[in-house]
Amino acid sequence: MRKIKIGSVGLGRLGYEHAVNIATKISQAELTAICDIDAQRVNQVATELGVPYQYTDFEEMCKNPELDAIVIVSPSAHHPAQIAMALSYGKHVFSDKPLGTDVAQCLIAEKAVEAYPDQVFMLGFMRRFDPSYLDAKARIDRGELGRVILVRSYTQDPISSVESTLKFAQWSGGQFLDMCVHDIDLVRWFTKSEPKNVWGIGGCFEFEQYRDWNDGDNVAVMMQNEDEAMSFMFAGRAAAHGSNVETEIIGTRGTLRIASVPSINHLEIMDSHGVRKECFQDFLTRWHEAYINEIVEFCNCIIENRKPEVTVYDGTAVSRIAYRCKESFETGKMLSMKD
Amino acid sequence: MRKIKIGSVGLGRLGYEHAVNIATKISQAELTAICDIDAQRVNQVATELGVPYQYTDFEEMCKNPELDAIVIVSPSAHHPAQIAMALSYGKHVFSDKPLGTDVAQCLIAEKAVEAYPDQVFMLGFMRRFDPSYLDAKARIDRGELGRVILVRSYTQDPISSVESTLKFAQWSGGQFLDMCVHDIDLVRWFTKSEPKNVWGIGGCFEFEQYRDWNDGDNVAVMMQNEDEAMSFMFAGRAAAHGSNVETEIIGTRGTLRIASVPSINHLEIMDSHGVRKECFQDFLTRWHEAYINEIVEFCNCIIENRKPEVTVYDGTAVSRIAYRCKESFETGKMLSMKD
Amino acid sequence: MRKIKIGSVGLGRLGYEHAVNIATKISQAELTAICDIDAQRVNQVATELGVPYQYTDFEEMCKNPELDAIVIVSPSAHHPAQIAMALSYGKHVFSDKPLGTDVAQCLIAEKAVEAYPDQVFMLGFMRRFDPSYLDAKARIDRGELGRVILVRSYTQDPISSVESTLKFAQWSGGQFLDMCVHDIDLVRWFTKSEPKNVWGIGGCFEFEQYRDWNDGDNVAVMMQNEDEAMSFMFAGRAAAHGSNVETEIIGTRGTLRIASVPSINHLEIMDSHGVRKECFQDFLTRWHEAYINEIVEFCNCIIENRKPEVTVYDGTAVSRIAYRCKESFETGKMLSMKD
Amino acid sequence: MRKIKIGSVGLGRLGYEHAVNIATKISQAELTAICDIDAQRVNQVATELGVPYQYTDFEEMCKNPELDAIVIVSPSAHHPAQIAMALSYGKHVFSDKPLGTDVAQCLIAEKAVEAYPDQVFMLGFMRRFDPSYLDAKARIDRGELGRVILVRSYTQDPISSVESTLKFAQWSGGQFLDMCVHDIDLVRWFTKSEPKNVWGIGGCFEFEQYRDWNDGDNVAVMMQNEDEAMSFMFAGRAAAHGSNVETEIIGTRGTLRIASVPSINHLEIMDSHGVRKECFQDFLTRWHEAYINEIVEFCNCIIENRKPEVTVYDGTAVSRIAYRCKESFETGKMLSMKD
Repeated sequence: MRKIKIGSVGLGRLGYEHAVNIATKISQAELTAICDIDAQRVNQVATELGVPYQYTDFEEMCKNPELDAIVIVSPSAHHPAQIAMALSYGKHVFSDKPLGTDVAQCLIAEKAVEAYPDQVFMLGFMRRFDPSYLDAKARIDRGELGRVILVRSYTQDPISSVESTLKFAQWSGGQFLDMCVHDIDLVRWFTKSEPKNVWGIGGCFEFEQYRDWNDGDNVAVMMQNEDEAMSFMFAGRAAAHGSNVETEIIGTRGTLRIASVPSINHLEIMDSHGVRKECFQDFLTRWHEAYINEIVEFCNCIIENRKPEVTVYDGTAVSRIAYRCKESFETGKMLSMKD
Repeated sequence: MRKIKIGSVGLGRLGYEHAVNIATKISQAELTAICDIDAQRVNQVATELGVPYQYTDFEEMCKNPELDAIVIVSPSAHHPAQIAMALSYGKHVFSDKPLGTDVAQCLIAEKAVEAYPDQVFMLGFMRRFDPSYLDAKARIDRGELGRVILVRSYTQDPISSVESTLKFAQWSGGQFLDMCVHDIDLVRWFTKSEPKNVWGIGGCFEFEQYRDWNDGDNVAVMMQNEDEAMSFMFAGRAAAHGSNVETEIIGTRGTLRIASVPSINHLEIMDSHGVRKECFQDFLTRWHEAYINEIVEFCNCIIENRKPEVTVYDGTAVSRIAYRCKESFETGKMLSMKD
Repeated sequence: MRKIKIGSVGLGRLGYEHAVNIATKISQAELTAICDIDAQRVNQVATELGVPYQYTDFEEMCKNPELDAIVIVSPSAHHPAQIAMALSYGKHVFSDKPLGTDVAQCLIAEKAVEAYPDQVFMLGFMRRFDPSYLDAKARIDRGELGRVILVRSYTQDPISSVESTLKFAQWSGGQFLDMCVHDIDLVRWFTKSEPKNVWGIGGCFEFEQYRDWNDGDNVAVMMQNEDEAMSFMFAGRAAAHGSNVETEIIGTRGTLRIASVPSINHLEIMDSHGVRKECFQDFLTRWHEAYINEIVEFCNCIIENRKPEVTVYDGTAVSRIAYRCKESFETGKMLSMKD
Repeated sequence: MRKIKIGSVGLGRLGYEHAVNIATKISQAELTAICDIDAQRVNQVATELGVPYQYTDFEEMCKNPELDAIVIVSPSAHHPAQIAMALSYGKHVFSDKPLGTDVAQCLIAEKAVEAYPDQVFMLGFMRRFDPSYLDAKARIDRGELGRVILVRSYTQDPISSVESTLKFAQWSGGQFLDMCVHDIDLVRWFTKSEPKNVWGIGGCFEFEQYRDWNDGDNVAVMMQNEDEAMSFMFAGRAAAHGSNVETEIIGTRGTLRIASVPSINHLEIMDSHGVRKECFQDFLTRWHEAYINEIVEFCNCIIENRKPEVTVYDGTAVSRIAYRCKESFETGKMLSMKD
């Protein structure tokens, strides 16, 4: 069995998760190199996972001729340049979302990808690889829902980790860029059409500091698509019950709900609080399988010499929409995607 | 519209509930008289509900020529004699379960009912009048489940009212007579067959005082029917989440579950305890609609000159089985219903 | 017990429901008179329910000195004039929603109500009287949710009755006026604040005839309140699973969902379709208890000489907002409530 | 990272699942050898998974000095002899349940295990490694349920695969040995006490052929433990909704339910059948994670030089109880475990 030799950059929470998955859970892959600006962290993880090559310089890693592919889990601002560089050294590239921190940056990434048409480029919209989301997509594509009328999608961080959320929030790009991009991707995926008009609103309901960052602690967007399909997105930073990502697709023939109760497992508890299910408190646990599946798909694309369903253009389109939502939120105006 | 004039005996919790229902919620009925040994209570309720006649002597009430029917919600030990007396005065009779406190008593009631074949007699197995149980029964009778394999039925009082439960428990006849009779009735109703062998077990898991009463705080029964259908019943005195009466019917073509979550209403709460539903804490609230429906059916039987589905023989059969379960529990033996 | 003598106008589906409830299920009320333009229908219902007085002329009914109160369940266009007339004859008035078919009409009703401050006037937002909605409201008012961030509310008719829906739809005032008014009322009730900006969108996803009526078969509205609270409403005419009215309230400390599964009863069915709950197919069944409760409250207000929580101004406010949503839908613009 | 070199015997459905897991999903293990009586199948799987050594003779495989451990997924009748042989060649042994096909066989396995105290022996009660069952066990052990009163556990095969079930059923040992052993293991695990009396019943509700095999197509067992704890088990061959393994633990302080709805994923479907969840149709899918986790635990025991929680004595105890249940079913008698 051919194994894809991967160099991975970024060893934050998600970067480490990807490193562990590649090293131990994905039979199509080998974690051959890791890179981070923190040399000590690189050494620690390399030792733990038995990784042969260690880097603190990304370009040096790209030069390693043993590597087939680069996985980018660095801070968002580095994505476009690292994508371009890795491609230029002949590597296949997987990059975590977002494609870039603004549309101009996305276009840089687009050009790089276009310049290396024989190399695989894949963007990490992991929700598309969650079994429940995949099942929903298959049902919609088989026509079980009839015509899609409305997509509703929520992304809420749990209150249980609000301290770390607050620390990170101001560097996140704001809720529209950091959270809603996933929901925007789902809306486009499920409806197969593009938004025409967007209106973003929100407020600071508990954490006034978001005002200083031109953001809200809770925000919402409604979008009207070219073909009349509608969508509603909600993002919040402190859901009482847990890490809540749920999506509903209403069609003319039926409705699907994905994870409207984000229960951790098959346990139902009956006690003085009633009958209850406990919920995910952590996005890494919620998306554990999806994070593995997306890298498996990336490797399979390389092995089978085919391209992933998610393209670089999806990355740009989502960023463009998210920025328009943010602009709508900031100006208080409903905005056309055309202007 | 003809109104059935009712005299009701017993003003305990359930007796009062029936009085209020008859007086205010059942258009086919009028609460014309009430009776209880506590004259003050009779007067208070009569004033509140505008009841014309007040009694502390049951026979006096039965003599009232205005009354069409008697509703008996007195202590169980009085049921057979009161049934016989009310029938002898030409009244239609509704009696709360159980028919009698032992099989001999049930046979007294049977004879009385047989002696007055033109009068309506109905026994209060109210679960049969709950909309969910009715829906289940209709589906089973339509054959949607195929052949019935197993009936599982639980009756649990809530821990929230355990103090009053404990006070009452030693006079209740024990769990098999007081609680399981309802489940036994359901098993016979759903399977349409009779138990052949029974085994009752149980213990004192928290409240040792039940040993003094030859009872357990939690008990279970398994029954094997003549036609191989099986049943399992569980009764407990202190469920943490509430008043829990649930029933499952497993058939060769499908399974039905009734109230496996005894949620009070359509509310779902998402908070630090997860996603949860709060549960009934009170049997009167749980069976509110059923208690009304059974009296409506009783009145309609009188008005339409027909007999109820539940007969006096069902009352005897259930008691006979419940006693056999109790005997099995006490002797530690699996017992045949035939011996 | 004092009984409120009621004359009821309108014997359509809901009018008949109210008539039956008043006649048979509400101990505080008597159905003393009914009125409809269809004399035969009046006679038929009067006979069935034993109603003493029959009318085909509304003013004649109002003149009946025996009547304490008038219940208006006539076509919406008649509401303001009938409210004014009934009040002028000294009657307490309950009117089904909407207060009027446009804001000018609502103001006529407002003036009439203001002219008779000693008489009870109540508007039929029955959802406020559903046990689950009441429970939610109580929890919110007790502060269990913290600050309200978002209210999401759906109103979907079932596909099982789409033929009658389509016949009625063009006379209904359109979805914003006919369906969303209930959701708008709930948003104001739960948030205790007023919308500042609204954007209504929608389309014809299956039934093109809605275009001729300046309406959509599915529509959505997002609203931004003065205090930053947000709301999203969705209305549709043909939900596959049934009559679906659900509401979610997201707060800083918790979330409540009301009827996110509109299950008819406590039955869970396990068959070749999986594990499932069947849903309401009919709004009269769904709101049966609420329709009774609202008339009970109306009677109690009269008896206890107090005013209902819902005022005539709520009726105007909701209509004003619904019209603004409709205007937004028709013009394609996000609109301020202030212009 | 040390990798445990495993030789696996048996390439049926579950044997193949284990082979794939060991080869591709378990970083602590290497699939170094496989053995089956079907040489062609061995060759095919070895090629697919890149397995270095192929055997059709079990003893030959045991002689391979490279192997650290043997995984036994052969027909149940071979388990005791293969366990003994593998241990005698110095290998650690993992054996699928049951330990043996009768108690005498189990005792042979016990003696072998006792003879090699320094080698790891583990029995495949995989349910103990399912995340939901693990969560339940942890809650019980932390005392969250108070004292355990009742364990109810169901094992139902799906009707969707009834044809293959029927083919296999007569060689399976019967429902008590083939299905209930898992539930018996759970009862012992959760209650930490032993059954004192058992009564097994059942019948042929649809498939008369089970009578020829001294079995029922649906069977039930009630057990009374030494410490009064109770249990009820139900096993069936053709559940309409899917592969249904559910367990309930009722305690004095709360109740846990595991997988009372065996939903495949987080999807909720709303269509003309109501609101529904689709269910597992396949035990390999249901227990996928548990099958991996148990081999991981086996490897970790070897690496960390410790013994698994499940001992060979658990295997004998469970078999002894299952046989007693079967005897009770066959004789129609409630039986003591002591006789």
